[in-house]
Order: sequence, then structure tokens, then C-alpha cells
Amino acid sequence: MSRFWSTVVHQLSPYVPGEQPQQEGLIKLNTNENPYGPSPRVLAAIEETKERLHLYPDPSSSALRQAIAERYDVVPDQVFVGNGSDEVLAHAFHGLLNQDAPLLFPDITYSFYPVYCGLYGVRYEEVPLDAAMRVQLADYRRTCGAILLPNPNAPTGIALPRAAIEQLLTEHPDQLVVIDEAYVDFGAETAVPLVARHENLLVVQTFSKSRALAGLRVGFAIGQPPLIEALDRVKNSFNAYPLDCLAIAGAIAAIQDEAWFDETRARIIASRQRLADGLAALGFEALPSSANFIFARHPGHAGASLTAQLREHRIIVRHFPHPRIKDYLRITVGTDDQCDRLLTVMRGLI
Amino acid sequence: MSRFWSTVVHQLSPYVPGEQPQQEGLIKLNTNENPYGPSPRVLAAIEETKERLHLYPDPSSSALRQAIAERYDVVPDQVFVGNGSDEVLAHAFHGLLNQDAPLLFPDITYSFYPVYCGLYGVRYEEVPLDAAMRVQLADYRRTCGAILLPNPNAPTGIALPRAAIEQLLTEHPDQLVVIDEAYVDFGAETAVPLVARHENLLVVQTFSKSRALAGLRVGFAIGQPPLIEALDRVKNSFNAYPLDCLAIAGAIAAIQDEAWFDETRARIIASRQRLADGLAALGFEALPSSANFIFARHPGHAGASLTAQLREHRIIVRHFPHPRIKDYLRITVGTDDQCDRLLTVMRGLI
Repeated sequence: MSRFWSTVVHQLSPYVPGEQPQQEGLIKLNTNENPYGPSPRVLAAIEETKERLHLYPDPSSSALRQAIAERYDVVPDQVFVGNGSDEVLAHAFHGLLNQDAPLLFPDITYSFYPVYCGLYGVRYEEVPLDAAMRVQLADYRRTCGAILLPNPNAPTGIALPRAAIEQLLTEHPDQLVVIDEAYVDFGAETAVPLVARHENLLVVQTFSKSRALAGLRVGFAIGQPPLIEALDRVKNSFNAYPLDCLAIAGAIAAIQDEAWFDETRARIIASRQRLADGLAALGFEALPSSANFIFARHPGHAGASLTAQLREHRIIVRHFPHPRIKDYLRITVGTDDQCDRLLTVMRGLI
Repeated sequence: MSRFWSTVVHQLSPYVPGEQPQQEGLIKLNTNENPYGPSPRVLAAIEETKERLHLYPDPSSSALRQAIAERYDVVPDQVFVGNGSDEVLAHAFHGLLNQDAPLLFPDITYSFYPVYCGLYGVRYEEVPLDAAMRVQLADYRRTCGAILLPNPNAPTGIALPRAAIEQLLTEHPDQLVVIDEAYVDFGAETAVPLVARHENLLVVQTFSKSRALAGLRVGFAIGQPPLIEALDRVKNSFNAYPLDCLAIAGAIAAIQDEAWFDETRARIIASRQRLADGLAALGFEALPSSANFIFARHPGHAGASLTAQLREHRIIVRHFPHPRIKDYLRITVGTDDQCDRLLTVMRGLI
């Protein structure tokens, strides 16, 4: 605290990211990283780009927008890119979601959303998930300035079908609807095909999960050009070059390697089923996951206690203190070996 | 323009960065890049880090803060890092420079400053440089909420001595003073040694110029811990991981190679003198530069016209339309070969 702080700083409750331990030898199942790593083409692209480190990157990342547009069958003017989907979301909160009426998002969701609201003074209301931890569209039929839904939701992992997203868009023609699809590639339906006919839809995705580039910090949004223009105006008033030249080159290579993408996500989906079966056999209750993690609780054990005990066995998972989910663990789907190790240790704890 | 935009978006006048042409074969002297490239150790560090792309980076970039602290003889709690000094400045505008009384900065300076003010609603007053394009401390003796000065100033290249910065700090004990030292390593005195005894000083630097990493996007700030805490609170409410793992590793390697830093900046300083002499011989009036560029005008030729003619000869320099400086060119100090080519072409135009 200091007399030199702007007023807003006093009011902030910053986001607390999952632990990124620097020591080796841990089984890290706490931040939904992809154990298979990126396409080998990414490494080659970075190698080729190292000669350009002294030059500024393309401030508009045009080649990357083009590559994303081709992959998702849209035009580059419908694509925005940023430093991870967190930065894309931040600009969306600042430039689009800050309306007179409150923004709506679920009570159990990505815990960064209320933090952004604090940073930009966005009014919001949390809409409770139902008793089964599902989003119910009927609960969003109320006065609002905009709606933000992750699909699949995090940390529940539960997805809505595309038809439900379209219904939401149709029910709220005068409100922007942002769908945060960080985990969509692990089994949910993307809303991108709805962009063409819904001017109130912005879809946000990331390279951190299905394309295994959490370390490279690239996210993007797809929407009609006026929405992209708003994000560009904010970005160009904040930081002209948020993506470095290695990130741009690596992300282009990643999105062009469809075979690697398909193979690795299929492996993760298969491992998720195996992990879910193993947890069920131990008496865990898991929510139906369309993401690369499983959100589960055990009727006989508190979440905080299990998390701490796993840590003693050098396995880290994520635990959230929110009252509705305090007995759940969010377990990243790692390799089969990592999942088996977790199940073995858990067998000794239950 | 769209009914889905937040109010702030309509009011923005985004920054226009210097051109980053994608075609080859141009002599690029328009965005003050360092022609010698980064330390070879940077390339090695990036190579070693490529195996970690699937993992999130350290959100607090602790190792980089440590390396910067060691280099500048401060402690890590006095160091903030961000995605280029542009992002560091953005957070400073949001978290520190937004005060009830107006922020002061020169009328001729980095053109991003008023853009940030628009983004965060910061009141500001531009303080005119004197007739010789110098900052006069006496002009800052007025009611204000904070002061922002680049040193050396851009695009003039003129530096203030450290003693003048200390005088400014002493005259404004209740206002934060931010010194933007993007170009300081090319001949000016850094204010970092003043941090220990002035709680109202924040120094901002970048890896883009003297460490030749414009493509990697790393900047930093040094100040007393309460100021760094404000920046951390804003950063952790905006984007937990703004620096990717390659940028962190590369920047650490760059700051630890003092020999490369010394050698390349000495070459640029020598080339600057050679370029200044050549321009003087052609009748140009150049301001005394402590940066890696020269700001010069020719009494017989308009700046816009010279810029366009150079472009026809595949040489790009920066021109600003502001009335006070519309006849100036800002010419990056490139290699001697690049500077000689510019002088040769210019000889044919004058």
C-alpha cells in the first residue's frame, strides 16, 4: 500500500494462478497442461525465427490471424490474437463486456472472471450452476449487459451442445455472448460455426491446452469484424506487440499440424476415460468431463486433505476453496503412466 | 463501431507503431532496432528451453527478476517485468499514474503516452519542450498528480543528467516520477542508483534496444517495493503469464552477457557519431543524441518529402506529423554500411 497507488489498485483482488513449481520430479496435474508437447513443427519454426530476435514482430500478427482463419473457415478480419487467452479475455472485459447492465457468468467457473471485473469496474452477477453443476439457460433469462460462459465450463468440465449456445444467442440478441472455449477440443462442440450468423457471439480459444503451448502464451478470439475491431482498438492502446516473433511462428506451425493435434487429443480423451474409470472404482464421484481434466470428489474425504496428501507423494492437483466445490479435486489428464501413479497413490489414501 | 462496444472503445485513438515491413531488402532505420542482434547466449538459452513449451512459465518470472536485480544492484522486490516496456508502462498508467491531478509529460515525446491516458482515463497536460527541444525542469513546477519523462527523450534523443532527475524527484516529493529509459544505454545516465533514496521514482527499461531483443518482448521497471507491488497487483489482475518461457530464458541470458552488451553499444555509439558527421556535412541540423537514433532536419527540405524519397530508394526512416517536428526525420543508427547507404542516397536528394 502506498500513497502513489491509483485508486483502482487498492480494490484489486488479483488472480492466484495454479502453482508452477520450479523443482523437478513432481507429477504435475494441477494446471491442465498437455503432456505430449507441441508439434515438432513448432520447434522447427522457432529455430528458423531465432535470426529475427532483434527486429520487432509484426504488430498485427497477420500471418497468424491468416493461419487461424484458414483452420476455422473464417476470414482474418474475424480473428484477434493475444498473449494467451487471458490477455484476450482481459481486452474483452475492457472493450466489450463493460456495459451498464451487469455481466452474467456462472458462480462456479474460471476464477479470473471476477478479477477482470475488479480491474475494469465491470458490474457482474454470478448465476448459480444447478445442483448437478450444470449451466441452465433458463437462469440467464434476466436483465444483463452481456453473458460469459466457458464451454466446457471450468473447473467442472461439463459442456453445453452447440444448439444450446445458439439458443442463448437467439434469446439475447442485444447482448454480447462470449464463449470461452479453452478446453473445447477435448470433446465439446465449438461455437465458431455460429459466428457467421450471430453478430453477438465472440468465441475465445487458446493454444495452451490442445496445442500444448502453455509456455508460449498465445490465445485468440473469433467473431464478426466489429467485435474484432474493438479488441484491436484496446490492444493497440495497450501494447502494440504482445506476441513475440517466436510465439507467432510457433503458433502458426502448431495450427497447421492437424495430424499432431488429432493424435494427441485422441490420446488425452482415451486417458481421461481410463482415469475416470479408475477414480470411479475408488469410490470417487466425477462430473462428466469434456475437458483435459476431471473434477471429482470422494464422499469420505475432504478435498483439501486429499490434495495435501497427494502433494506429500509428489503429485500436485488443483483444489479450490469455494464452498460449493471445496471437496472436489481438479485432476489434469496426464499420460497413462501419470494417471496410473495418481490412482496407485490414491488407493493408499482412501 | 458497434452497439456491443464498451464506452471507452469509442473514445480511443490507438497508437500507430512504426512500419514493420514483411518484405526483404529494405534498409530499416525506422524503429530503432539494434543491427547487431542479441548475445549468442540468448540463442543457446532459447534452444535449451524449447523442451518446456507445454508447461506454463513461472508467472512471477522470478529468475529474470533476480538476474535484473543482480545487474542493477537492487533486490528482486524492486523489479517488475512485463511484455515489453510498453506493457510495463500500460500497467504504470493504470496502477500509478492515474491520479486526481493531471499527469505531466513533454509535448514532444513517445506518442504512446496520450494513448494510454485515453485507455485509462488519465488526465494529463503536455509540457512544451523549450525552443531547443530540451526538457526544462522549471516548466514542471506546477500542480500535478505525477510526472513522466523519457530519458533520453524520444524522438529528440536529448538526455538529462542524473543530477537533474534527482532535482526533479526532490522538487516533487509527493508525486510519482516515472523515468522511461528505453534508450539510456546509448549514452545517458540511468536513474536506477536514485531508487534507494527516492520512494517516488520508478525507472522503466526495455530489452528491445541495447540488448537487441525487440522481437522477444521484455521490459522491466525498478522502484521501491510498494511501487512494484502496485504493478504486480495490476499484472495479476490482467494476465498471469505475460512472458513466455523463451522470453524469460532469453532475457536472462542477455542481461548476463555484459561483454556483448558493451561491445555492441560501443559500436552503435561510434556509428552515431559517424552518421551525425555525415548528416552535418549535408547541411542537416541534428539534435544532440544520447540514443540509438538521430533526430535531424534539413533547412531546405520537408521531412515528409525526404521520408517518401528515401522509401523509393528502399530506405525507411520514421517521420511524425506533429507540427513542431514535421520537418524532422528520426533515423535509427544502423551498421556503418547502412548509415553510409543512407548518406549516399541523401546526397542525391539534397
